[in-house]
Amino acid sequence: MAIGFSGLPTIYPVAGVRLGTTSAGIRKSGRRDLVIIELSEGSQCAGVFTRNAFCAAPVIVAKEHLTQATPRYFVINTGNANAGTGEQGLSDARQTCESLSKEVTCFANEILPFSTGVIGENLNMDALLSGLSAGVSALSDSGWQDAAHGIMTTDTVPKGVSKKITIDGKDVTITGIVKGSGMIRPDMATMLAFVFTDAKVEKPALQECLKKVVAGSFNRITIDGDTSTNDAAMLVATGKSEMPGIKMLNSERGKIFLAALTEVFATLAQLVVRDGEGATKFITVEVNEAKSVNEAESVGFTVAHSPLVKTAFFASDPNWGRILAAVGRAGMDGLNLKKIKIYLDEVCIVENGGRAQSYTEAQGQAVMKNAEIKVQIDLGRGESSATIWTSDLSYDYVKINAEYRT
Amino acid sequence: MAIGFSGLPTIYPVAGVRLGTTSAGIRKSGRRDLVIIELSEGSQCAGVFTRNAFCAAPVIVAKEHLTQATPRYFVINTGNANAGTGEQGLSDARQTCESLSKEVTCFANEILPFSTGVIGENLNMDALLSGLSAGVSALSDSGWQDAAHGIMTTDTVPKGVSKKITIDGKDVTITGIVKGSGMIRPDMATMLAFVFTDAKVEKPALQECLKKVVAGSFNRITIDGDTSTNDAAMLVATGKSEMPGIKMLNSERGKIFLAALTEVFATLAQLVVRDGEGATKFITVEVNEAKSVNEAESVGFTVAHSPLVKTAFFASDPNWGRILAAVGRAGMDGLNLKKIKIYLDEVCIVENGGRAQSYTEAQGQAVMKNAEIKVQIDLGRGESSATIWTSDLSYDYVKINAEYRT
Repeated sequence: MAIGFSGLPTIYPVAGVRLGTTSAGIRKSGRRDLVIIELSEGSQCAGVFTRNAFCAAPVIVAKEHLTQATPRYFVINTGNANAGTGEQGLSDARQTCESLSKEVTCFANEILPFSTGVIGENLNMDALLSGLSAGVSALSDSGWQDAAHGIMTTDTVPKGVSKKITIDGKDVTITGIVKGSGMIRPDMATMLAFVFTDAKVEKPALQECLKKVVAGSFNRITIDGDTSTNDAAMLVATGKSEMPGIKMLNSERGKIFLAALTEVFATLAQLVVRDGEGATKFITVEVNEAKSVNEAESVGFTVAHSPLVKTAFFASDPNWGRILAAVGRAGMDGLNLKKIKIYLDEVCIVENGGRAQSYTEAQGQAVMKNAEIKVQIDLGRGESSATIWTSDLSYDYVKINAEYRT
Repeated sequence: MAIGFSGLPTIYPVAGVRLGTTSAGIRKSGRRDLVIIELSEGSQCAGVFTRNAFCAAPVIVAKEHLTQATPRYFVINTGNANAGTGEQGLSDARQTCESLSKEVTCFANEILPFSTGVIGENLNMDALLSGLSAGVSALSDSGWQDAAHGIMTTDTVPKGVSKKITIDGKDVTITGIVKGSGMIRPDMATMLAFVFTDAKVEKPALQECLKKVVAGSFNRITIDGDTSTNDAAMLVATGKSEMPGIKMLNSERGKIFLAALTEVFATLAQLVVRDGEGATKFITVEVNEAKSVNEAESVGFTVAHSPLVKTAFFASDPNWGRILAAVGRAGMDGLNLKKIKIYLDEVCIVENGGRAQSYTEAQGQAVMKNAEIKVQIDLGRGESSATIWTSDLSYDYVKINAEYRT
């Protein structure tokens, strides 16, 4: 069960974007597993990808095509990640683009392929290729719901966000969908996220914008510390809005756009954690008073990755000693323990190098019962902050990942 | 259930060491939870301790006493780690030594205190202090079995190793006991390990020897990546053997001693993993052909810490793609994927950047069914190696840690 949401909000279509979803039977029959997204001519596209050295074949091909042409189509399959598949995998990813390019009449390098699912098995190309024409036939302005379903793997609910803003008196829509709930510890990018806007944004500004918003969203979440081979986040601006174009992000228009995107990406990233594999709690780890943002991030991730902290949250057990132990091993030089304060929501649990004088177990238990909990760690050694979002570690995490291929 | 062993082997007493164990009721009544170890006069003692910044009060006091005097007694309690307890904790650890010193007539700083158990609660000093005289009365040459039980927390079986060697024609005995099965990712030292020998070794050589053997044993294991606040490994040489003394480790006698200690410490470290919380598999991750030992260790730990790899082992699922993905995110610059080979026992699973041509799922499954499995990763970029030992991640790990304080 996802924490704090149950499905897609109202989705506003984005002018210039059509989506088509079909069940191609790539791994299991009857499951929506193939999504085609069409971008109108003149759309700009920015992308960030996994930094896993064993990145998947579609990641290699998508990055290559992105340098060669302006994308007109995305083709996304679930059920198989086409990763760890060597030459055959590359050939399959290219073949997918070739075949789709004939259906829709464009160049193969105007298509970006994305795959997600099991690693290390060859794609079921017969199923995938035979599903392409149904996907194309399904293309529609209103295909968002199906597409959000079509990119899911172990996700329990479709995830998306949609908002309207005004720039220079003109309506601008931003709508994104995302998948991912395990193997989540993005490094540079994440799982699969596709965000679209009808804003007019020049490509360099769009890429800069994506990099900025990913740093504060998808790069600040973790479920299990495992970085996927297939992570990708794409940002497309179709330019169909009547607003004047954005050339620089530090312009007035640029700032409004960046602020809206920041919110959209943070929400999408949090949705992934809220639907984390086996998650029963949504944990925000806020680290303040660090020497640098890097230090704050590093302390936050050490706490967020600790299996002992995560199982204590699962048990609703205010075993704050485990949080303290995780902070203690985060590798900070010259740490002054007496300056550190740790809070569970509003309750101070650690000060002066030990349990806070005022703390009672009842206070801790009252907080731990909640489904959404904030851990605040004030290090008392600087002025930098970072916020990490994570989930607990439950029986179901083990169950889902132990039974994934069966 | 521990993997591949069911309890203590034959234990050879060590001349000059007496052990006394009692049930003081520190946390639960009727459980052996207080161990006193007496070292004969003239014994040399070396120690390594956790590098967790929030180290426990007894660690602070033990390190302090070790610089002030030659230890004559260890006092070890379970049920409570006396960590995160601030000034009160320090005062309790000192009080423990004070009280014991009066029972046995020595100086308080000739006593080293050790605690293990729940973090962040004050020690039950009434119970602990009132148990001291029973512990002293129980002191005996043959108290090893009780002591191995008395230092256990979530351990399911007592753990120890004992061996006899000959140096210059004289018998030398080495016997050690160890506790620990969760919060295991030692950094410099580990859980609680106490190793004794009647060899004659000068203190600098003894400390050097301990540092060396810990680097290749307790610093090469991980269960959950969490470094405890209380880790300590102690090595005591009573000098009661008739062998001539060891001054330098690179002497002939020193080499024989070091080789035997290396074996003893590796076995003890492996026992901790074999009894890892919820462990159903004992996994050896051997990394070869790395640029440096650090790189080999880092790749090994990345694989050993991956929850996805660990749950796949739990499920006996040859989901080798997860191993490949973990290697890919280990942060090696300029990795040539085509040179990497990965084996499950003797079965090659990855080569040429993808699944090995010869690999079949049946081969993988045959290996994964075993309780002891070796993952061998040849990086093809250097000549350094490291071996890490770890366990799988099971329902029971979550259960044990979710219910730890209840």
